[in-house]
Amino acid sequence: MVISSIVQSTLLRHQRVIDSALRATVDELTTPELAPFYGQMRYHLGWVDAQLTPTANNPGKLLRPTLLLLAFEAAGAWELANPATDDTSYLQRALPAAVAIELTHNFTLIHDDIEDGDAERRHRATLWKLWGVPQAINTGDGMFALARLALWKVVEQGVDATIAVRLGEALDSASLVLAEGQYLDISFETRLDIFVAMYLNMIERKTGALMSCAAEMGARLGTRNQETIARLRDFGKAMGIAFQIRDDLLGVWATTAELGKTPAGDIYRRKKSLPVLHALEHAGERDQQLLCTIYQQTAPVAPEQVEQVLAIFERTQTKTYCREFLAQYCRQAHKALAGVPHHSSPVAARALEDMKTLVHFVEAETRE
Amino acid sequence: MVISSIVQSTLLRHQRVIDSALRATVDELTTPELAPFYGQMRYHLGWVDAQLTPTANNPGKLLRPTLLLLAFEAAGAWELANPATDDTSYLQRALPAAVAIELTHNFTLIHDDIEDGDAERRHRATLWKLWGVPQAINTGDGMFALARLALWKVVEQGVDATIAVRLGEALDSASLVLAEGQYLDISFETRLDIFVAMYLNMIERKTGALMSCAAEMGARLGTRNQETIARLRDFGKAMGIAFQIRDDLLGVWATTAELGKTPAGDIYRRKKSLPVLHALEHAGERDQQLLCTIYQQTAPVAPEQVEQVLAIFERTQTKTYCREFLAQYCRQAHKALAGVPHHSSPVAARALEDMKTLVHFVEAETRE
Repeated sequence: MVISSIVQSTLLRHQRVIDSALRATVDELTTPELAPFYGQMRYHLGWVDAQLTPTANNPGKLLRPTLLLLAFEAAGAWELANPATDDTSYLQRALPAAVAIELTHNFTLIHDDIEDGDAERRHRATLWKLWGVPQAINTGDGMFALARLALWKVVEQGVDATIAVRLGEALDSASLVLAEGQYLDISFETRLDIFVAMYLNMIERKTGALMSCAAEMGARLGTRNQETIARLRDFGKAMGIAFQIRDDLLGVWATTAELGKTPAGDIYRRKKSLPVLHALEHAGERDQQLLCTIYQQTAPVAPEQVEQVLAIFERTQTKTYCREFLAQYCRQAHKALAGVPHHSSPVAARALEDMKTLVHFVEAETRE
Repeated sequence: MVISSIVQSTLLRHQRVIDSALRATVDELTTPELAPFYGQMRYHLGWVDAQLTPTANNPGKLLRPTLLLLAFEAAGAWELANPATDDTSYLQRALPAAVAIELTHNFTLIHDDIEDGDAERRHRATLWKLWGVPQAINTGDGMFALARLALWKVVEQGVDATIAVRLGEALDSASLVLAEGQYLDISFETRLDIFVAMYLNMIERKTGALMSCAAEMGARLGTRNQETIARLRDFGKAMGIAFQIRDDLLGVWATTAELGKTPAGDIYRRKKSLPVLHALEHAGERDQQLLCTIYQQTAPVAPEQVEQVLAIFERTQTKTYCREFLAQYCRQAHKALAGVPHHSSPVAARALEDMKTLVHFVEAETRE
């Protein structure tokens, strides 16, 4: 996902506090003997280079922990906040969960890179490429364990143990659903009989579950009101799916100038994302056969084949379909936000505004 | 580890109840769509064959969950038990934790097999060999998440949330330490400058941590007495290391008749276990060079080279050293057991007897 400047300030608001908490979690455990083990985690998180030397970093967009903190603010953090000052110490209560969600997300990226054989992520060599598959698998496992361990610090922040257990359950449940989604994704790779409904089921698990979990955890830290928790969870889920469909749209129709992505990159990569699955279901017999040939050949996809695929997408009105699909999830997200019991606190109001900004940002892709 | 009939009845006592709980945990989640995902877990656990058809199974020895239940019985389960009957329903309270520890152990085996490139485990093809590395990594991740998710059922069994959080913390902490140990183990593979102290540090993490965690979790479910918890945790840790050193002894000196293992199998595999590390530290210069040559060559180890290595072990009194090393951990285990505050309940007494039987079993290898 490439994030425009419109939404950057929203994501920036909590970035520093999340980044510090993340670093403290990893730094605390590092000993000389284990420096290369935690060093791999640091490298993956963008804090050091391959020689483990600190590097000017781009901390990533921290979308999931930011969503968690926004949900926390919207749900009840205002009871802890002092609206007269800029003091953000009330966020401490939710930071262990924010760290846990970001580390969980990153553990999945480390393993995804191995499973997909990707040698690069964000223009840097991936962990397995630098340290080998065995160490990379193991570092991912360690980060997954660390994610959970980091969560228990909520108890030190005064969070009741019954809520802490609920948070653990939510995170573990989302992690399992994520693995289910990844199982489906890998098993789709060798098939072309994937329907849109199956794809949606897969991305609900693979990207919806953790975003939904982030919003739910934030909400649970702020309130015991089940309505608030449910609506914020719905919001997270809708946004997770929306972000994925936005990615699918940009993977085919983004221009280099627009977003720094290769135009039609997902066609060159033969990615079985929403556009091609829709086209396969709606194309005539000849177009269908052509798509099958291109998506099953072992040779690289030629530029003229990309043109053929784009022409089929045109004939099946695939772009319009994907945009309407995306719009539907944006509507769901708006509806979920509108259902969050209102509170006049400026902290809650600002958080709800920020969440709306995230939806507007995704919504921009539904229009020409 | 090969388990003799002496100790089998001890391990058998709780086997059925653990096995049922494990199966219920996995079965509950299986849907037709995800059948192959959970099917891989079932295959690894020995319940089905590669076609996912149920198979006459050997449920493994379930050492860690058994230790957990024994610690639970020794620490306070007797308050829930009816000594007049054979009813074991009091074990319900601890079963979610027993399932969690066994699934965590098995997740590490799935990933270890990939990391070590092992094509077989217990005379069956490993998961990655059958379903490929990407699916096997992901199934391991799913099992790791499921292990944690299974733990939260303790709350339904009436366990207080503050204790549940402690259990989660213990499991997550042990899982992280285990990954640290695995990092050290993999990094040792390409080195010969490993000293016994480094090796001990590695196996403390790799096999001591989870056994220690099993005993601690069982104890915490039975009592709030910190002395009891600490002693049972010490027992688990000592036993974890003792079992590993016993394996190291048998890997070099077991005879086929004795244990169904290849004699000197660890020398053929060039495994950097305790015997060779001790010999490297204590051999004369010529013997040291010979060991280095054999353990660094790319060609398979020849039978006459195995004889040479065994002769060096003889000259460095390595077998005596390993036995004394093992005896030391057995003494620690006995001492820890003796320190568990005594209770006259038959349930507690029997559990302590069973734990003693485990130590005696390992101790047998300290004698000619």
